[in-house]
Amino acid sequence: MSRFTSMADFNAALTNLPQPNFLAIESASARQVELTKPIGSLGRLEEIAIFMAGWQGRARPKLSQLQAVIFAGNHGVAAQGVSAFPSDVTAQMVANFQAGGAAINALTTACGAELTIVPIELDRPTGDISREAAMSEEECLEALSIGAAIVRPDIDLLFVGEMGIGNTTPAAALCAQSFGGSAGHWTGRGSGVDDAALARKTQIVEQALALHGANCNGPLDILRRLGGREIAAMAGAILAARLMRIPVLLDGFICCAAVAPLAAASPQFTEHCLAGHCSSEAGHVRLLAALGLDPLIRLNMRLGEGTGAAIAAQIVRSALAAHNGMATFAEAAVVQPQ
Amino acid sequence: MSRFTSMADFNAALTNLPQPNFLAIESASARQVELTKPIGSLGRLEEIAIFMAGWQGRARPKLSQLQAVIFAGNHGVAAQGVSAFPSDVTAQMVANFQAGGAAINALTTACGAELTIVPIELDRPTGDISREAAMSEEECLEALSIGAAIVRPDIDLLFVGEMGIGNTTPAAALCAQSFGGSAGHWTGRGSGVDDAALARKTQIVEQALALHGANCNGPLDILRRLGGREIAAMAGAILAARLMRIPVLLDGFICCAAVAPLAAASPQFTEHCLAGHCSSEAGHVRLLAALGLDPLIRLNMRLGEGTGAAIAAQIVRSALAAHNGMATFAEAAVVQPQ
Repeated sequence: MSRFTSMADFNAALTNLPQPNFLAIESASARQVELTKPIGSLGRLEEIAIFMAGWQGRARPKLSQLQAVIFAGNHGVAAQGVSAFPSDVTAQMVANFQAGGAAINALTTACGAELTIVPIELDRPTGDISREAAMSEEECLEALSIGAAIVRPDIDLLFVGEMGIGNTTPAAALCAQSFGGSAGHWTGRGSGVDDAALARKTQIVEQALALHGANCNGPLDILRRLGGREIAAMAGAILAARLMRIPVLLDGFICCAAVAPLAAASPQFTEHCLAGHCSSEAGHVRLLAALGLDPLIRLNMRLGEGTGAAIAAQIVRSALAAHNGMATFAEAAVVQPQ
Repeated sequence: MSRFTSMADFNAALTNLPQPNFLAIESASARQVELTKPIGSLGRLEEIAIFMAGWQGRARPKLSQLQAVIFAGNHGVAAQGVSAFPSDVTAQMVANFQAGGAAINALTTACGAELTIVPIELDRPTGDISREAAMSEEECLEALSIGAAIVRPDIDLLFVGEMGIGNTTPAAALCAQSFGGSAGHWTGRGSGVDDAALARKTQIVEQALALHGANCNGPLDILRRLGGREIAAMAGAILAARLMRIPVLLDGFICCAAVAPLAAASPQFTEHCLAGHCSSEAGHVRLLAALGLDPLIRLNMRLGEGTGAAIAAQIVRSALAAHNGMATFAEAAVVQPQ
């Protein structure tokens, strides 16, 4: 799967989601019971190993190929003063990613991921969602396809991050349209706006919902009206991963908001996803609850770029190291519990 | 500091605790503001980098030397059926550590730590705390000194783990004696005992508190009456680290219980410590609150051995990678917030 050519094509993908390999889940679960530790004593590390086994289809899952992708896009709505930074910073940060100077560069190196940077038409911002649709259907399918095409079929785990000045505004709108709740329920301070800007931002989200809400027919329509190019690309990559049974580690609020329309339409959509972290962006804790996901870490991060997922990837790596590297009770001649 | 020769010596160490380097804290804090991210957006990663700077006394803290030590000991009280495993398993697991087959082996490799295993007189269990003191004052000073002596002065970060069948029982007693609260408040299922064994275990802790409570004069006395050799060794290592201004990553319930008498006597004692994780052992969340520490991860782990700290060490490594590796706004020519 490298392209979504029509709404029908996208919807078909979303309604024919592959399942994990239940035999691998069973084998990995059986192995966990035999390892030299009290049953369940590695907690979520055990669950992660079994989850990875299911999606990779092997009882001993691996993490030699960890792919990280950052998508970048610009937003017409940024002109409304919804961010503490000007839109120029999107391209400046893309240059910083390419030069290796951003947080995600340090963190992908630390977790052993290969990082790809995908700026999408930065000089052509999406429409201002408070006045018009962000994208045409064609543009949205194009962004989804860019995301889908970048996912390598041979990887063991994927995570995606983003850069897009102003993008917590479309993200809040996507959440409200997908899961209900007021604009204020989902709108937060993003990169750090003050009270006045937060009030303005909330009003912009309200306007966008009032303008588009009644016209949203399904997940693609929500994404194209209220989303953004980097957001659609993230959704495309995460959907493509599912179609290839590749497990995904979700990042922060924007990444989860990209998933929101797909998960609202198809509740089993996030089964191949682990929530990497819970950010301090106000809506993220609610969004994770709506998605039914329990985040691996809560470190008050709110940077995006994939930084939360990069930290969580080390936990996945550790979970697999324990799962694959430990001796069994029999191998180590340790007495099992009475 | 490699030995504690008397109670006076131990108490003197505890009342003359070195402080972090405030100039290094200031420099590291100033650097965090200049890095290419919204201020505060890396959350606890920023705090960790500044904490490490303070204790290492350098604005750019490093993690090239990460020392992990597992202390093992046996407990007379284990004969009371307080564990799901027999005492023989302590030595069997030490052999498993030495052979590289335990969870902590996989996890120290994953986090880049050098692991040392220190079994302490496994064939000579401590006294049953429900009937007598666990150790004499001399034995306790000896165990504290074993812990202190193993800490290498050139390391960047220390974590300690333990193995000792039955040791959640003395740990619960140490917490109750140090911070108050009933036996039931601090006693949990350890490696996984059933309801009947949990009730018996709680009663054993009550008996130990009734027997020793009124006779406990200060932290050394609490440790020797209610603790264990591996527990005292952990306390000694963590105290020795403080005396050398070496930061420490705490592990689970036992590790924090080892610290409890010292922290109760000297509330600033844990200033050089980060709480690695919150385990699913019932008393740990309360103990962290009593110590005033916010754990880095909560993954329902309850294995001990240092496994929680090993996972958290990767977060510390990532925090330093971001702190040291990121470009500043000026270096990357990125516009700062308006």
